[in-house]
Order: sequence, then structure tokens, then C-alpha cells
Amino acid sequence: MEIKLAKKYGFCFGVKRAIQLAEKSAGAITFGPLIHNEREIKRLEDSYSVFVENSTENVKDNQSVIIRTHGITKQDLDILKSKNAKITDATCPFVIKPQQIAESMSKEGYCIVIFGDVTHPEIKGVMSYSVSEPIVVGSLEELYGKKLGKKVALISQTTKQTKKFLEIADYLMQNCYETRVFNTICNATFDNQEAVRELSQEVDIMIVVGGKTSSNTKQLLHIAQMYCKDSYLVEDENDLEDLWFRDKKICGITAGASTPDWIVKKVQDKISKL
Amino acid sequence: MEIKLAKKYGFCFGVKRAIQLAEKSAGAITFGPLIHNEREIKRLEDSYSVFVENSTENVKDNQSVIIRTHGITKQDLDILKSKNAKITDATCPFVIKPQQIAESMSKEGYCIVIFGDVTHPEIKGVMSYSVSEPIVVGSLEELYGKKLGKKVALISQTTKQTKKFLEIADYLMQNCYETRVFNTICNATFDNQEAVRELSQEVDIMIVVGGKTSSNTKQLLHIAQMYCKDSYLVEDENDLEDLWFRDKKICGITAGASTPDWIVKKVQDKISKL
Repeated sequence: MEIKLAKKYGFCFGVKRAIQLAEKSAGAITFGPLIHNEREIKRLEDSYSVFVENSTENVKDNQSVIIRTHGITKQDLDILKSKNAKITDATCPFVIKPQQIAESMSKEGYCIVIFGDVTHPEIKGVMSYSVSEPIVVGSLEELYGKKLGKKVALISQTTKQTKKFLEIADYLMQNCYETRVFNTICNATFDNQEAVRELSQEVDIMIVVGGKTSSNTKQLLHIAQMYCKDSYLVEDENDLEDLWFRDKKICGITAGASTPDWIVKKVQDKISKL
Repeated sequence: MEIKLAKKYGFCFGVKRAIQLAEKSAGAITFGPLIHNEREIKRLEDSYSVFVENSTENVKDNQSVIIRTHGITKQDLDILKSKNAKITDATCPFVIKPQQIAESMSKEGYCIVIFGDVTHPEIKGVMSYSVSEPIVVGSLEELYGKKLGKKVALISQTTKQTKKFLEIADYLMQNCYETRVFNTICNATFDNQEAVRELSQEVDIMIVVGGKTSSNTKQLLHIAQMYCKDSYLVEDENDLEDLWFRDKKICGITAGASTPDWIVKKVQDKISKL
């Protein structure tokens, strides 16, 4: 069986970096789960004694703490610092940017508009850096009637779609004298989708590795099925069925954004032995 | 005959201000014609000895010079200063803004993108204030393939349409990390159009005062005719015909952007005597 991996799959740059930092911080706690994949969390617990802590209250003085990819609020960071925590900052650099923009632009008097989900930890973090009350909207419609300044700065949650971001920007540009638009959207999710679109047209069978309830994994499967009818979703190598591969010559593999490489590798190894 | 004037008509704020400045500067020259209306230029010559000069070369030392609404280049301004000219700056404040933005943003390292007509005096002036080579485009298509920086600042010619401005902004936001959008569009022309749209629905006859070759005047006539079939274009009171007003009770009046109020007043006076 010939195997082709998608050009982009699985973890994004920021998550890979966070895992590496966690592996170098044996015995530390992560403030919130580092990633939405229980097997990976368990691996970090078992192999590196890196455990999850959900509240700053429970952090002990001088404890080693890893800040996860989507960052934390300025207030939580201050609490950690007051406890003299040894901080490993695994906040994705693409998330640090909007935090810095929210802080500097609000200090310069810009009204901060954030396109994002107000309940998402990444956005809670970004909001906390604005020295004035930021306006957070999930869509253009939510912006109607909001009191805007003459000068606004627009930031996006990293995982949002460009189309809706532009709708919001267009509204601001028509209603404000100066609109400062920071395109903080990260294309990692879309890169994985583009890669599976390409690969699924070249193979006889397509395996998507990821959580069965993960929306981005299901999206990858959906795209794969558009081009390759024999596309299957597996959580790990144990889900593979011999029958699927009968008479197939080329197998494509991709993985959801929360699937670690070592699970993909196990799937790949098992298929290559079929 | 009842007469109703459009809520907005004729000169914009910037032109009115320039005329007032010229009237206070008897004996001065204007650098380029102050306005595209020959009768008004002649009035300024006859009543205030304000004549038109088209080249900085011909400006004499210590001469009084009026800079017209759409401004001049920094280089021409420097020449005038070197000749110790007594300068009355009638540049529209809405044009001074984009000049200042081009200068300050280019000094801060932003790539300057100007939506406008590269041959228009206003744009030549704005361009001259950028310390780096600005990109001037008349449409989105002209932007394709242009080398842009990570940080761009977008400015518009004051008389351009918002729709096309947003198209250009959308492209920049998708291709640049930071897009700083300055909505320097002036709505004066559109305000006149909106006002005639409203008024022409309330009257029996509509008189549009303006140049017969002026595109903005013809646009006003076109809008008027959509709502009032008895709409007429006149250059001045001599073009009015008694017949038009037979059996009419309410007459609306508007005027093109280059039509001085005193011509509108003469038209109004003649109609009121019918």
C-alpha cells in the first residue's frame, strides 16, 4: 500500500510548540488543558508529570506553570506572578500579537473592536489587554447600533473566517474616520482543509485521523468525501478495518487539528503493514 | 409660484471657503483656476482683481498667491515659499487631511496606497507628501500584482465612491498584516444628489442650475427626472422659459457643485416673479 500524507495536517505551529515546551517542563502544571485531546494530555501526565490545573487559586507559590496556546488574561497572569510562579509561556505567537495590539491601540485612544467569541479563552485574554472597554462581536449584525469612536482598531480571533472579518471591517470603514485593521487570522485550519482537498483527488482511499466529535475533523472528512468516496474517520489505529483497503493502491492520510503526530504515525504504520 | 430650494446644492464647504478667502485677497493670483465656472472666475477678476496663474515660474517675488481647494504639490509650495510669496491657503481642509496622512504614515514606514486619479491635481498634491513612492490606483484591478508592504495605509481622493474604496480596502486587508484605512471621502457631491432625490418628489417642476457639460450637474438632472418629469437644466436665469411653469404650483431648485449662489439667486428671483 502506497501512503501519501497531506501536505498539512494535525497540529498547527502553535500547538506543536506548546507540546515541545511542556515536554521540557517536566513536573509543571498547565493552566487549563494544553490541547483538546485526552490521549495527548494523558501522555504528558504519564511521561512528563505535567498535570492540568484550572484555577489560579490552586496554584502554589513558586510552582512551575505552563500557559497554554490561547493565552490567559492579564489578571490571571498577575496572580501567577504574585505567587512567584515559574512561568513557561506557550501562548501562540499569533495570539500574543492581538493581545499586544489591544493594549497598544487602546492606549493610543483607539476603540478596540474584536471579531470573536466572547466566551473563548483566547478572546478573554485579548480583551483583558485593552485599557478601554473593547467591543466584541461574533458577526456584523452584532455591531449595529454600537457606539464607535472616530478611530477604531479591528482585531480578529485567530480561527475566524476572513469573509466575515471583511464584512465587519467594511462597516467600520464606512462609519469611522480611521479604521486600523489587523488581520490576525491564522490560516492553519484552512491550510489543513486545502491540503485534504488536494490529496483526496489523488488517492483510492482517504483516512482522516481525529476525534469523532471534533468539528474540524468532521470538516476534513466532509471535504475528503467530496473527492474520494472511500474516506473514513478513525480516532486511532484500532479503528482501521482491513476490508476498507481491499483492491486499493494509494492511501491518503490527514489528521484533525488536535491529533498528535504520534497517533498519525501509529495509523500510518498499521496501514503500511496491510 | 412657491419655490423650494434643495436642502443641499451648489458649492461644497471647501469651495465656499475658497471664494470667501479670494474675496478677502484682492489683487492676489490664484494658482490654477479656483473653480470650474467661468462666470465666477470672471467675477473674481472684475470685482477683486484676482487673476489666474498656471505656473509657479510666472509667480513674482513677494506676490500674493491663493492656493485653490484641491491643493498643490509640496514642491510647488516650496517654490512659492522660495519666492517669498504671500500665501493664502484655500486648500480644502478635507484635502489637507490626506496630505498630512500621506506624510506621517509614510514616515512611519507604511506603504501608501491612494485610491484616486493619478492625473488629478488633488492626487498629485497628496502624492507629493509621501516620503516613499505611493501606489495610486483607480480601481481594485490596478492593484493586482503590486508589491505591498506588511503595513499599508489607504487614502481616498475626496470625490471617489465608497463602494470601490471598500473593494480596495478588502484586498489590502487580505494581503497585508496591518491595513490602516482613512476614509477621506467627502460626501458633498452625494449630499447634493440625495437632496435633489428628496425634493423632486415634492414639486411640480424642478430647475437644475449648472453647466450643460458638467457631469455632476447632468447627474442631478438625471435624478430629478426620475421623480419629476418636468425637470430642466439651465445655466442661468436667461435659459428659463415661461411655458415650463404654466399650471405649476411648486418649483424646486438645485444647483451643480460649480454653480455659485448668486447665479442660483438670480434664477430664484426670476421664477418668483413669474
